Amino acid sequence: MEKGAYAVIFTSRLGADAEGYGAVADRMETLVRGQPGYLGHDSVRGEGGLGITVSYWASEAAVAAWRANAEHLGAQAMGRARFYDWFRLDVCRVERTHGFARD
Amino acid sequence: MEKGAYAVIFTSRLGADAEGYGAVADRMETLVRGQPGYLGHDSVRGEGGLGITVSYWASEAAVAAWRANAEHLGAQAMGRARFYDWFRLDVCRVERTHGFARD
Repeated sequence: MEKGAYAVIFTSRLGADAEGYGAVADRMETLVRGQPGYLGHDSVRGEGGLGITVSYWASEAAVAAWRANAEHLGAQAMGRARFYDWFRLDVCRVERTHGFARD
Repeated sequence: MEKGAYAVIFTSRLGADAEGYGAVADRMETLVRGQPGYLGHDSVRGEGGLGITVSYWASEAAVAAWRANAEHLGAQAMGRARFYDWFRLDVCRVERTHGFARD
């Protein structure tokens, strides 16, 4: 990720009342890709409902615009009302990145 | 997470040759908890071998010290030599955090 990019770390645990979560998550995944300043994301959910999604953004303004997206606000409200037992959201500035890939 | 903390996002895919990975990962999980400046971590691995681990640190010096830990260096070498198809590591400064927990 380029220096100056932002990473938003969303760590959550799904609760018992997660009916409809998959459809909402799929819709958000489509929607986020069209957001200005969206650079990519990775998402994993494991056993026991713990999940981590990291999205990457070109600027803090892009992070704020995604948070305020009307359809996303609706999904956030459903998340609080039903889907998640808890979540934590860290907004971070990427200082440096390195990677490895097998030949 | 407090402002000024660092988050290290480790995103990886396990390859076919992951025998012994679990024992190494367990050992690193024990070791990291004793590191100076360690604030916590979350880790999820999903289907298909994709995993995200986020560790939180009090300072950039604490991040550097963990990276240079001798036993951790050995685990990193095994990761490159055998365990991972690819990984990406983002070192980030936490700008702000918020959370939610159901009553």
